[in-house]
Amino acid sequence: MMPPTLIASSLAAAPRPLFPPLERPLGPDELEQALRAFQGSYYVEHPFHRLMYEGGLTQRQFQGWAANRLAYQRVVPRKDGAILSNCPESDVRREWIQRIIDHDGTESGTGGIEMWIRLGVALGVPREEMEDERHVLPAVRLICESYVTFCRTKPWQEAVASSLTELFAPKIHNQRIESYPKHYPWIPPEALDYFRSRLVQAPKDVTHGLRLVKRWATTPERQRKVFEALAFKLEMLWAMIDTIHNAYRQDDGS
Amino acid sequence: MMPPTLIASSLAAAPRPLFPPLERPLGPDELEQALRAFQGSYYVEHPFHRLMYEGGLTQRQFQGWAANRLAYQRVVPRKDGAILSNCPESDVRREWIQRIIDHDGTESGTGGIEMWIRLGVALGVPREEMEDERHVLPAVRLICESYVTFCRTKPWQEAVASSLTELFAPKIHNQRIESYPKHYPWIPPEALDYFRSRLVQAPKDVTHGLRLVKRWATTPERQRKVFEALAFKLEMLWAMIDTIHNAYRQDDGS
Repeated sequence: MMPPTLIASSLAAAPRPLFPPLERPLGPDELEQALRAFQGSYYVEHPFHRLMYEGGLTQRQFQGWAANRLAYQRVVPRKDGAILSNCPESDVRREWIQRIIDHDGTESGTGGIEMWIRLGVALGVPREEMEDERHVLPAVRLICESYVTFCRTKPWQEAVASSLTELFAPKIHNQRIESYPKHYPWIPPEALDYFRSRLVQAPKDVTHGLRLVKRWATTPERQRKVFEALAFKLEMLWAMIDTIHNAYRQDDGS
Repeated sequence: MMPPTLIASSLAAAPRPLFPPLERPLGPDELEQALRAFQGSYYVEHPFHRLMYEGGLTQRQFQGWAANRLAYQRVVPRKDGAILSNCPESDVRREWIQRIIDHDGTESGTGGIEMWIRLGVALGVPREEMEDERHVLPAVRLICESYVTFCRTKPWQEAVASSLTELFAPKIHNQRIESYPKHYPWIPPEALDYFRSRLVQAPKDVTHGLRLVKRWATTPERQRKVFEALAFKLEMLWAMIDTIHNAYRQDDGS
């Protein structure tokens, strides 16, 4: 007989990424490879995302996800503001600021946050209910705020390293662009606009972030900080999707 | 016989601005007028600035001033990043971000910080000595950092209110544009570029800042916070110029 299992707790933690031995400093390319090897802890591997790409989500689950994930979209420019606030280098700020512009847009009705709201609307959440965040779980709000706090309180180079989950983002965006039309005929095509835009923006962000991290993290001590920063962010994303999954779980447990 | 006077301490404090009675909330226009009435505490009134506009500064004093004031230029985008980080409103951030772009520029060799460095170079400070901040007094550094801390730790609306010293800035910029060619023939004309650029940028900033403050500060409690924020910033600027003055004082005490 199978022992009883606690399904929730088995999902609650991200697979722990493997830190490389740091008895000597890694070279820049080794550092990048070791960071990329954290991919297995990215929340694309979470059961909720697997359900999503296999066609197993209900419309209610999709809606709950989009409404909650907006809280994350909305903290992104704030954590980027915190990085600017901690960074004394004009050259770095001048490039980093583009992330805020990408998310807030250049005028009302543009930018990543607005595109995410439109995703929610496309999935059937009224715009008003997206904007007033009535569906955002308090736990999700706190999880997102922890990202702002991290970027406020850590050296800016570590905050930059935490942004490197973008290394793994193209996979998640491509999976959405491919799987939604296949499995969810009720989702209108404009729901994919946000993901398409990120496929253009994210590689620029990754190139800049990697360049800064490789320039700074030349000692084992700094490299450990970089791995810890990326591990924190992976855990934060995992905690967010896990919380959403548990809140909108179907009767059969999926 | 005149009693002995402690000159330094008589300069150390800014004239205390007069807070209006707040038994009832001020209307938006009253609020603006009461904020504008803080002008008498602006550091344009400090003896060092009076000396500057009367032609009484030596080149050494000018150089010490420009090299130290760069520390302030350099914290401005950081305090604006802190405001973005605390502000949950995309519409506000989208406009506020322009201040960071104004200071950091859109490419290397542009922006307000670079223009301030050129001012120092025009006054005879080698670029290298401007950039590495070797002349920046530790007290000036701490004073400037207090502004970032204020904007990090206070509600963003109060941080916005602290920026309203810009209300009084056109006077200071015009005084420089007028007095330098008159009193200091050794100063090349390009030294005025920064001040000319601020005459264009500052009014936009003031309009936005005032709009946000008037929208938010509708109760006596909030209005008191707004006055306190502006008083803090006036004191900070005064402390900075006073520290610079004392450090570069001439033998005759001026």
